Amino acid sequence: MAPIEHGASLSEIPTPALLLDLDVVERNLRRMAERAGELGVDLRPHVKTHKCVELGERQRALGARGITVSTLYEARAFAGHGFDDITWAFPVSLSRLPEVQDLASRFTLRVVADSEEAVEALSRLSVPLHVWLKVDCGYHRAGVDPEAPESVRLAERIARSPFLTFDGILSHSGHAYHGASREEIAAIGEEERRVMAGFAARLRMAGTPVPGVSVGSTPAMSAVQRLDGVTEARPGNYVFFDATQAALGSCGVRDCGVTVLASVVSARPESGQFVVDAGALALSKDAGPQHLSWSSMGEIFSDYTKGILDQKMRLVSLSQEHGVVHAPGARMPVGSRMRILPNHSCLTVACFDEYQVVRGGEVMDRWKIWRGR
Amino acid sequence: MAPIEHGASLSEIPTPALLLDLDVVERNLRRMAERAGELGVDLRPHVKTHKCVELGERQRALGARGITVSTLYEARAFAGHGFDDITWAFPVSLSRLPEVQDLASRFTLRVVADSEEAVEALSRLSVPLHVWLKVDCGYHRAGVDPEAPESVRLAERIARSPFLTFDGILSHSGHAYHGASREEIAAIGEEERRVMAGFAARLRMAGTPVPGVSVGSTPAMSAVQRLDGVTEARPGNYVFFDATQAALGSCGVRDCGVTVLASVVSARPESGQFVVDAGALALSKDAGPQHLSWSSMGEIFSDYTKGILDQKMRLVSLSQEHGVVHAPGARMPVGSRMRILPNHSCLTVACFDEYQVVRGGEVMDRWKIWRGR
Repeated sequence: MAPIEHGASLSEIPTPALLLDLDVVERNLRRMAERAGELGVDLRPHVKTHKCVELGERQRALGARGITVSTLYEARAFAGHGFDDITWAFPVSLSRLPEVQDLASRFTLRVVADSEEAVEALSRLSVPLHVWLKVDCGYHRAGVDPEAPESVRLAERIARSPFLTFDGILSHSGHAYHGASREEIAAIGEEERRVMAGFAARLRMAGTPVPGVSVGSTPAMSAVQRLDGVTEARPGNYVFFDATQAALGSCGVRDCGVTVLASVVSARPESGQFVVDAGALALSKDAGPQHLSWSSMGEIFSDYTKGILDQKMRLVSLSQEHGVVHAPGARMPVGSRMRILPNHSCLTVACFDEYQVVRGGEVMDRWKIWRGR
Repeated sequence: MAPIEHGASLSEIPTPALLLDLDVVERNLRRMAERAGELGVDLRPHVKTHKCVELGERQRALGARGITVSTLYEARAFAGHGFDDITWAFPVSLSRLPEVQDLASRFTLRVVADSEEAVEALSRLSVPLHVWLKVDCGYHRAGVDPEAPESVRLAERIARSPFLTFDGILSHSGHAYHGASREEIAAIGEEERRVMAGFAARLRMAGTPVPGVSVGSTPAMSAVQRLDGVTEARPGNYVFFDATQAALGSCGVRDCGVTVLASVVSARPESGQFVVDAGALALSKDAGPQHLSWSSMGEIFSDYTKGILDQKMRLVSLSQEHGVVHAPGARMPVGSRMRILPNHSCLTVACFDEYQVVRGGEVMDRWKIWRGR
């Protein structure tokens, strides 16, 4: 794509483009930093959502002492820009141990494990390595059972290994994304807190010091009422939010910080159908919160700055580069533009190489998206 | 990710990895070239599936005189490697006209239009430009109505423009993906042929020469019985196929040429659940052929070389980097590996930067994937 100049107008730049509205994003960053402070926990933001050094630096300036990543590629990219305390919040893959060993010798790398096999393999690496024990707090995706005696023994084993530093216990309340109301999500956040604080207490009773208790998900962090017994939280999505978070009540539509700018490339006004140049490789095929009977592949703004969605337009399907919009009665000739709110900002961001950073309706900068694994 | 050496074994390389089985792919390339010959049409392969210069070169060696792309980024990447006859098979976006103008001055760029607005804008570019008129052959996504008098007038307008060269009429039978049987898909292919040949005849009767009639989709091309009146076909997916094409009957499981190699990173054998390191950013969130009641996010091989899928394992959900496998009774400790057949190879390929090119179970090369827009 041709380079976009500073000050370019959104009516002129090539599409599809990923717009980052900096006023909104900076407000989101401040609010979550304040929220973590109120809840009495450290904030270790998950950068898998933005994959962007410029945003990581802003999170650090607001008090984050370390970051969370989902891939070793992200770890390398951020370490290359001065981030020296990084948690890889994914059950460590035995296929990546040589890289783990290399990275851990260059900065503070914290890894996550929930199996005998992984702990055994990490112990044999002979580098100083920080290890979190992953705990299933009710999401039932990964993590040890906090009620099982083996889980206590696995924590002990990490804590006693001469090369490993036991960082504590870590969970992800991904099931908060399946909550049907803010009350349900708050209850899931409280369940995570209770399970984790309780397990930490049992480990301490059994003689294993537990330095950290780490939890996290944006919906739970937005809704939970207290986090006693927890030391840090790792939300990621809050930086941008998206249509799913707005539907869950984690945010309002005005808080959504990334949109895809698309152009109409084919129009059939007589049947109310329009094709735009934002397909599955611009928005991802994330179908949104299915438990809320979600049926669009993204929402379309009638006025982004006022946070108003167009209730008559619906993005009904996506193929590789095509998006199909149903908009009965609309007049949108070929060349018309629209801003689309993605169902899932993390996956949408991973479709692009860079953000067009926008303030006041003009592009003021371009920031790289570090995608890879 | 650490570089992978030639001769590396699939039991050793870092995961997730995108494997391209070259014996299978070369067979697919040969067969489609033969099939186009039998049907009496030129093959202009759609490279949006593989985005790979090495495969484009193989397609050219098998007789393809030009290629089809889905983005201008692909056009630039392939033009940079000596491909000088490229169709951008997407309704031309008015936001990209400066790039179209630049590229058309460097090689033969063929664009697609289906609106007055686009034809008007292309006429004003003042560069020699080849234009296809996009026709709706029954898919109802984009393209002009072949029965409407305005469609005849739009073709005439392109043909009479002093700067534009009218290449002919072009369609995509994407609805072949919604066929429930090989017979239905063959009928959709025949409908596309009939509509396009009929429209071309009407244009010629009205005095507009129609040099080309271009059709295409992998399922229709696999099932259709004749293509009289058609001059070229643009299938893309056939190079790799995938779980969707196997379900549609376009291919067998043994014909599927790309798989994702994944490792188990968390295991709960007692509940039959395993987490692998291939999530939405390795496989895409394509849910497969929903009209066939598809319910897995990818299929798992028990033996790739024999083309046997594991009927007891199911990839039930994907989050950003996690894949959740249900496999009651399976014994797969952390570190076990599996090969996953994606639902949609085009979107899976677009998640990776390179292929691990495999022959005989060993990695023999790495080929770049040119993704971008």
